[in-house]
This record gives sequence, C-alpha cells and structure tokens, in this order.
Amino acid sequence: MTTKLNDFTKLCVHTQTTKPWNLRECVENYSAAGIKGITVWRNVLEGQNLKEAKSLLDDFDMDVVSVARGGFFPAVEAEKRQAAIDDNLIAIGQSTGVGAPVLVLVCGADGRQPLEKSREQIKEGILKILPEAKAAGMKLAIEPLHPMYAGDKSAINTIAQANDMVEEINSEFVGIAVDVYHLWWDNNLKNEIKRCGKNNNLLAFHVCDWNVPTTDFLTDRGLMGDGCIDVPQIRGWMEETGFNGYNEVEIFSDKYWATDQNQYLKKIKNAYLNFT
Amino acid sequence: MTTKLNDFTKLCVHTQTTKPWNLRECVENYSAAGIKGITVWRNVLEGQNLKEAKSLLDDFDMDVVSVARGGFFPAVEAEKRQAAIDDNLIAIGQSTGVGAPVLVLVCGADGRQPLEKSREQIKEGILKILPEAKAAGMKLAIEPLHPMYAGDKSAINTIAQANDMVEEINSEFVGIAVDVYHLWWDNNLKNEIKRCGKNNNLLAFHVCDWNVPTTDFLTDRGLMGDGCIDVPQIRGWMEETGFNGYNEVEIFSDKYWATDQNQYLKKIKNAYLNFT
Repeated sequence: MTTKLNDFTKLCVHTQTTKPWNLRECVENYSAAGIKGITVWRNVLEGQNLKEAKSLLDDFDMDVVSVARGGFFPAVEAEKRQAAIDDNLIAIGQSTGVGAPVLVLVCGADGRQPLEKSREQIKEGILKILPEAKAAGMKLAIEPLHPMYAGDKSAINTIAQANDMVEEINSEFVGIAVDVYHLWWDNNLKNEIKRCGKNNNLLAFHVCDWNVPTTDFLTDRGLMGDGCIDVPQIRGWMEETGFNGYNEVEIFSDKYWATDQNQYLKKIKNAYLNFT
Repeated sequence: MTTKLNDFTKLCVHTQTTKPWNLRECVENYSAAGIKGITVWRNVLEGQNLKEAKSLLDDFDMDVVSVARGGFFPAVEAEKRQAAIDDNLIAIGQSTGVGAPVLVLVCGADGRQPLEKSREQIKEGILKILPEAKAAGMKLAIEPLHPMYAGDKSAINTIAQANDMVEEINSEFVGIAVDVYHLWWDNNLKNEIKRCGKNNNLLAFHVCDWNVPTTDFLTDRGLMGDGCIDVPQIRGWMEETGFNGYNEVEIFSDKYWATDQNQYLKKIKNAYLNFT
C-alpha cells in the first residue's frame, strides 16, 4: 500500500520545471510556496558566482537535493569523451559549491556506434570521475532514460541496465535516479527497484506524467495526474525499499512554461497531494 | 555473420511505405521495380472489391506477405472491446480475401487503465478471434511496439513480453512480428529472437531506421542507413534461427512521402542492398 502524501516536506522541484525563472526567482517562489527541496539545473548557475548561489539557497533555507546534470560520456572521438570528463569534473565542483549531495547523470549515447560501445564508454567515464566524486563526497546518480532517447541521449534505457552497471562499478558513490517518465512502461520495474534498493543504490526519485498522446520528444511531459502513469504505485515501490528521499518534480513542458509560474506551482502542489 | 543481400527476392514493401499510392499504383510500381513482396495495409482496401484486389495482385504475380493491421483490443468499455473483436474478424476476412498468410496485430493500449489490464484484454481478444483465424488458416503476428507507444498503441513493448504471451497462448496460429524500429534498443533482443525462433514463432521481419534526432512520434522513420539501427546485425539474428521470410520495408515518413515515390522506390532498393 502506498501511503498518502499529506504535506510538502518531501516535495522537491527541479529548477528546469519552472524554466522561465532564474535561480533567485526559483528560490524565492519555491520558498514562499512552502517548498524546501530544490534540484538545481546547471543552466541557472551559468554566470553566477557559486558562493553567492550557495548563500542565496542558504538564506531561504533551501535543501539542495541534487544538481542536474552531468554525463554525456560516449562519443566516437576521444577528444569529445575527454571534454565530457572535463565537464563532469566541473559539474562535481558546482554540485559541491551549492551543497548538493548528488549529481544526476544523463549518461549519453552516440548513434554512430553500437549501444554496447556507448555503455562501455559510460562506464569508463564514470570510473574516471569517481575519484573526484569520492573526494568531494558527491554521489553520482545514473538516470536510465526512456528507450526513445537511445539514439542520442542515453544508452542506458532500463533500470535493469543501470542496476547491472552500478553493481559492476560497486561504489557507494554510484547509484541510480528513478524517473517515472522513463521507466513506467517496464514490466520489470517493481523487481528492479527492489533490487536497486536492496543494494542501497536508490539515490533519487523523479515524478511527472506521460501525456496521452505525447506530441514532443522533449517538452511535452505532463503534471502528475495529466497522463497515464500510476505515480503513487511506483512511489510505493520506492518506499517499500526504505527509500525516504524527496519526490522530485521534473517536468519539461512548453504548455506549462507558457503559463504563470506561480499559478503552476499551485497546480504542482495540488498534483503532489492528489496524484503523487 | 550476416549474409549479404544480393537480390530483391526477399524484399517486401508495405503499401503504407508509399502512402501516396493506392493499391493499383503500389502493385504496378513495385512490380515494375522488380519487387514481388507486398504487405497490404487495410486503408488501400477501403472501397475496393476484395476479389478485384486479389485479381490485381495475382495479375502482377505479387506475393502478399501479410495484411496490416488488426489488434487494438484493450479498452475500458466492454462495447469498445467488442467493436475491436468485430473489426479483427473483418481483418481476418480481408487477409483471406487478398491471400495473405499473416495478419499483423498492433495490440493496443488504453491509458486509462494499467498496462497489465491492457495486456489481459489483448490476450482475451486474441483468444476470441483465434478460432476464426484457425478456420481461415490465418496466422496472427503480435508486433511488440516501442515503449513510447505504451500509453495508447500497445501494451506489449518488448519481444520478451510478446514471447511470454505467445507461449501462454501456445497456438501455431499466433506468433510475432519483429520490427527493428520498435526493438533495436533492447539489450535482450538477440536472446529473445533466439527464444522466439526456437518456438517457431517468428512470423515477420520489418525494417527501417531510427533517425537521430527523431522529430515525430509517428512519421519520422528513416530509410535503412539513415539512422542508428544496425539492421544487418538484427537480420543476422533472425536468420540464425532459420527464419527465411521477407525483409519488409515499413517506413512512415512525411519526408519521403513528399518525394517522387518511384525515385523513393529506387532509394529503398539501394538501401536494401547496402544497409539491410
């Protein structure tokens, strides 16, 4: 049985969910809405002094749940793979700077090579940045992405594949971010969440909904309750493992971005209590 | 090792691939291009006398590989499920009418209910039409669809799920259509094709490519060689099982539909020899 969510203590919003807002607007408005959890996307840190960003987050008593996103390791060209490593090291630094305990990885894929090759390069990339992550006390969360992104965004498309990789790497600093949007269709999801939890590898839980029909590959995600995902059921599976983290609202939506973001935040809170 | 395709004896084109053409245009032009295999989509049979359609196909010595498509069994409402059964019986009649040995099933999904429920209704639906299929000597091919269609087009999204269902139903008249577009991303694909072949359940093989990036959920499929799918590798896995059927070109593409269809047919033949 999934418990009911009665308050907002476990609600986290991704800054990308309210894309029209800069970091200050996110922090001020989330805080005013009684939302403490924030996942900071790197775009809102661009051109920002990291210390000032951290002060801002602290001033409003925000809990930085994670930073999104590192990854994108695979490439046919060695120099591109090295550039990805460099960028991930910057991302670890940014995550440390804003006080996040987790850096989310969208692992990447290069359609010019087999998925197996991209997966090898993902593993190599993670192993290369792992010492820096360890030194920073930063956990890396592999986020398996929907198979519709296998051509260009991630060669890790099921939680089973993510579990395999995380178990191979076998470090307390590498785990998994479960996003209902990417994984809801998988009939092995319940068992693989259980497997992941048993190994203490569940680092994050992202929620939104799958619109029927979906009209865009990137920016047509639904708010919980808009679509066909049974989010409470999946949250229940997470909680059965002992997972006690935030429920992170991560929605890319041209439709919602075009609306008043404070009104949208109210809708998010309503959807959180009723459909999450 | 995948063998090289040196001629067009195993090339089949779906009428939907050359959507601007009606049945007569498909038959005349495929035939003129030396293509014998045709999979007839039901839309080109609309308003046609079935006997005349059959005569046309016979006159040009076409080999009707299958009819597409039946299925769409799940629905919350019982009357809609019954309407689907009725429509599938019509589809079996049409398939018999044009001399096809196989009817392809896009199984359906209703986003208002759990995927498990939709899968139950798919199984029920297939069992309901099976006596008619048997009587007609018509094989039913479950086509697992890409997970991006789980919300509205098919609750069967992996070949493993299709294998499970086909083995449960356990009839020589129910098998599987493998489409590279839907299944290429799956790291279990090779093993599941093997499993399917072992049970003599491989009924059809559909080819196209996955464009990177893909911009539309339905009509942005690529011609073999355009995208990131290693079609020869998957064809090799099919052939290793003893599969000896047609390689069916099924491409929905606004881009190619907007071009001269005879030129497109030349491109298809070139892509068939070099990237299939």
